[in-house]
Amino acid sequence: MAAPARIWNQQQLSREARLVRAAKVLGKDLSGKAVPADRIADLLHTVIETGDRVCLEGNNQKQADFLAKALAALDPARVNRLHMLQSVVALPEHLDVFDKGIASRLDFSFSGPQAGRMAKLVASGQIQIGAIHTYLELFGRYFIDLTPRVSLITAEAADRQGNLYTGPNTEDTPAIVEATAFKSGIVIAQVNQILDALPRVDIPADWVDFTVQAPTPNYIEPLFTRDPAQISEIQVLMAMMAIKGIYAEYEVDRLNHGIGFDTAAIELILPTYAESLGLCGKIARHWALNPHPALIPAIEAGFVESVHSFGSELGMENYIRSRPDVFFVGPDGSMRSNRAFCQAAGHYACDMFIGSTLQIDLQGNSSTATAGRISGFGGAPNMGSDARGRRHASNAWLKAGRQARDGKNLIPRGQKLVVQMVETFREHMQPAFVEKLDAWRLAEQAGMAIPPVMIYGDDVTHILTEEGIANLLLCRTDEEREQAIRGVAGYTPIGLGRDKRMVENLRDRGIVQRAEDLGIDKRMATRDLLAAKSMKDLVRASGGLYDPPRRFRNW
Amino acid sequence: MAAPARIWNQQQLSREARLVRAAKVLGKDLSGKAVPADRIADLLHTVIETGDRVCLEGNNQKQADFLAKALAALDPARVNRLHMLQSVVALPEHLDVFDKGIASRLDFSFSGPQAGRMAKLVASGQIQIGAIHTYLELFGRYFIDLTPRVSLITAEAADRQGNLYTGPNTEDTPAIVEATAFKSGIVIAQVNQILDALPRVDIPADWVDFTVQAPTPNYIEPLFTRDPAQISEIQVLMAMMAIKGIYAEYEVDRLNHGIGFDTAAIELILPTYAESLGLCGKIARHWALNPHPALIPAIEAGFVESVHSFGSELGMENYIRSRPDVFFVGPDGSMRSNRAFCQAAGHYACDMFIGSTLQIDLQGNSSTATAGRISGFGGAPNMGSDARGRRHASNAWLKAGRQARDGKNLIPRGQKLVVQMVETFREHMQPAFVEKLDAWRLAEQAGMAIPPVMIYGDDVTHILTEEGIANLLLCRTDEEREQAIRGVAGYTPIGLGRDKRMVENLRDRGIVQRAEDLGIDKRMATRDLLAAKSMKDLVRASGGLYDPPRRFRNW
Repeated sequence: MAAPARIWNQQQLSREARLVRAAKVLGKDLSGKAVPADRIADLLHTVIETGDRVCLEGNNQKQADFLAKALAALDPARVNRLHMLQSVVALPEHLDVFDKGIASRLDFSFSGPQAGRMAKLVASGQIQIGAIHTYLELFGRYFIDLTPRVSLITAEAADRQGNLYTGPNTEDTPAIVEATAFKSGIVIAQVNQILDALPRVDIPADWVDFTVQAPTPNYIEPLFTRDPAQISEIQVLMAMMAIKGIYAEYEVDRLNHGIGFDTAAIELILPTYAESLGLCGKIARHWALNPHPALIPAIEAGFVESVHSFGSELGMENYIRSRPDVFFVGPDGSMRSNRAFCQAAGHYACDMFIGSTLQIDLQGNSSTATAGRISGFGGAPNMGSDARGRRHASNAWLKAGRQARDGKNLIPRGQKLVVQMVETFREHMQPAFVEKLDAWRLAEQAGMAIPPVMIYGDDVTHILTEEGIANLLLCRTDEEREQAIRGVAGYTPIGLGRDKRMVENLRDRGIVQRAEDLGIDKRMATRDLLAAKSMKDLVRASGGLYDPPRRFRNW
Repeated sequence: MAAPARIWNQQQLSREARLVRAAKVLGKDLSGKAVPADRIADLLHTVIETGDRVCLEGNNQKQADFLAKALAALDPARVNRLHMLQSVVALPEHLDVFDKGIASRLDFSFSGPQAGRMAKLVASGQIQIGAIHTYLELFGRYFIDLTPRVSLITAEAADRQGNLYTGPNTEDTPAIVEATAFKSGIVIAQVNQILDALPRVDIPADWVDFTVQAPTPNYIEPLFTRDPAQISEIQVLMAMMAIKGIYAEYEVDRLNHGIGFDTAAIELILPTYAESLGLCGKIARHWALNPHPALIPAIEAGFVESVHSFGSELGMENYIRSRPDVFFVGPDGSMRSNRAFCQAAGHYACDMFIGSTLQIDLQGNSSTATAGRISGFGGAPNMGSDARGRRHASNAWLKAGRQARDGKNLIPRGQKLVVQMVETFREHMQPAFVEKLDAWRLAEQAGMAIPPVMIYGDDVTHILTEEGIANLLLCRTDEEREQAIRGVAGYTPIGLGRDKRMVENLRDRGIVQRAEDLGIDKRMATRDLLAAKSMKDLVRASGGLYDPPRRFRNW
């Protein structure tokens, strides 16, 4: 029964060997953990081995862009067959590593801007996709079967010891570093500056092996900024229906909003329309949300008690610093975001997810996948699914659960509200409602085991269009569900294919609701309801604290 | 549109005021962040205010017991109406604070040892329960609507600056501290020692306000240790059915085991029975699991590639240190556990949860709640629910999804395996199968909105008893599901009430499987199959590295 002669610390030995090699190669250039930027290729060639799982940090916001470039510039004869782990595939370099034969396998969550090129590289066999994940799922796998050997991360600053300061964009860093550092992996951080004393410590020095001051600050995308000037009156109408028909109806107090103009419109009519309905302090008090500039008027009006964020948003730094009762900030005054915790909170501590989509089928399955583009879904599947492990009750959750189970012989259970908000026609007059999702075709093209659905029909509780709200919780048969969806699908072929009598019957039963059924006067649905009508209005609402990135300024 | 005259940093101001008071009261005793143990009452009286939300750390394993005692000794005339947030209510002091009128409200996850007394305090109105949560759900709410004002935590050591070293029992600390420290709350840590240099940093100093060296090391319960000597042959038989009928059948490679002798039996026959089936390297390679001593023989036999843990287990320290390829360890050689990440991994990165329960009803709902005891469920609801946000595929997940949806007009989707394992009769010949869960009566007694179900029937995929396996995925009607459950309920009234012809039909269709249907020879189901039959065997299997707590030693 003695232990067999097996080596049980191969990972530690491999780590030590890599560190020794690095010290030898970098020699006198290595000062503590700091590596000069011009030695990055030598460092990466020395500590990364062929076949390694390499996590490259980057999300919707901050990007380890210097390290991404350095990785893409490695010699594929020396380092190849890397298995890349990435929250987001956003930069050209993220795909260059596959094009050049440095990496061959990829597990990721989202690839919006690179979705088309990725599909081509998959078709040519240069990328093998492990799987597409929702963020928290990918982080979970870092601790189970996809633990990184090397992680390339980014932070605002490091000190001489290697402690890291992330500033407001903490984002995915803690999850990545913890999985790597505590499994004998190697953590390399690009930083914008090296300081003698950090404003605060976000990642302790002994979790970090190397720091390198990048020649330029890491790239950050202001992805969650929406110019109110671009919000249409149809979006105002849909926002009114959302507030009166769903937020007020279910007393939705803790929530997450997806990205886009549809939800920005909701944020912007909280201080006007929702206020006029007497809803301040009764709905939308607690948020799992990036610091959307469109939320400023609602915060100023006292609607919002707290916001915990996945990441930050460019230009919101001073506003956040000045509203610490609302946001999570450190002793230095800047935000601490955390994608892992915020996703957990979005899943388990919110009563509602509301977001946009591209396509919805007759079962209510929705997807942003389109043929020829492998894009992933980011956080939506996690937020937009019923949290079946949830056990705490709230009015919203209990009411949704009652509606879903009423008359069925089932033990009581609550349910999360998952609302898909979509105009019946999207750009180029493409109908949003379809017989069959493009996801089926993409699955075939890319050899996926099942079609990439963003939110499954059995998790969707409401579909909201300019024509009205379909409450899927109240549907009792597949046919009712189909007609409820057709009943809000407007003039699309799906909408025109409705059984008019059945839809009227569903309307009588409150399963389909029009604006007028909700007592909404459509004439009120104008841009006048928006608490801010332009970027400049947002700046004003913030008392000058919000400082939009240049591209959003037209003054 | 100027910002109204509202104070936006009340939390920061309140924090500052508390820190100033503490500095004044403690005066010369305050050395940096360190407070002498005998001044703890003064510290708590000064920094905790009536009505505060106070998070008191403690889980199945480590307990901030010194701080719990100190809190219970406060003057209720000075501090009262506290809202307690706790993963686990385990110590008498956890309820004393309610008995004495110091606290009045409680949100928590688990209260095993104090469940009876808690029910009495709820009945007498001394405890208002906010809600019972699964751990990750409670952590999520710390960032949304239950952010702590003061957190009382525990660590192995602090340095003079206030950096904390948790040792292997990191557990809930990172989640609690992050939510508190970054919302202007106050973090007080009891530590076993104050050191000049820490073996590693688990929590950075600037997230911690006060450290106090407790007179005795924090209490740690070896909750996950099961003496193999107490495993019965029935449990060996059930373990064989689990391995052949579920692990092998679905190729279950990433998993979590619940606590108890049923799953310990499975762990102990991996190197014998599963090995004889040629399953080494094919099943059970990646685990989200505390370091169960019963897993040692499977690790030594090469079954296990990795284990990420919620917490640690007393006596396993040296074994873990010597098996760093398997466990997550820090540069100091001791484990880094993390309940939040491990729960996320258990939810999203595992294909199966298998665990025991007390009661199962005819819909497959299961619960450990019994009348007169408010106990909660810890991590089971999170692990034992279908992760509907999951998007990555595996053979196990796809097969379960196919079985559930085969013949239904639904878009393909995978599903998590959730197995409830139970002997048909539990202690005192109480049947495990019931018409109605005790949870209904408890809900009435305690004024809960809905009955406290641990795992809902629509998430359970298999029920495993000594009579066989009921595969609920394959059931197509409520009646089939009921008869499948009756078909493995043995001689309980529920089992005796079966429709024998229908159960035989289900057996023909593979929905109910007996040991013989699986090709299992029941005569093999003896304790000889256990790779370790005693605690001493476990020590031997570990090459002397496992050092069981005294209570488990009878030599």
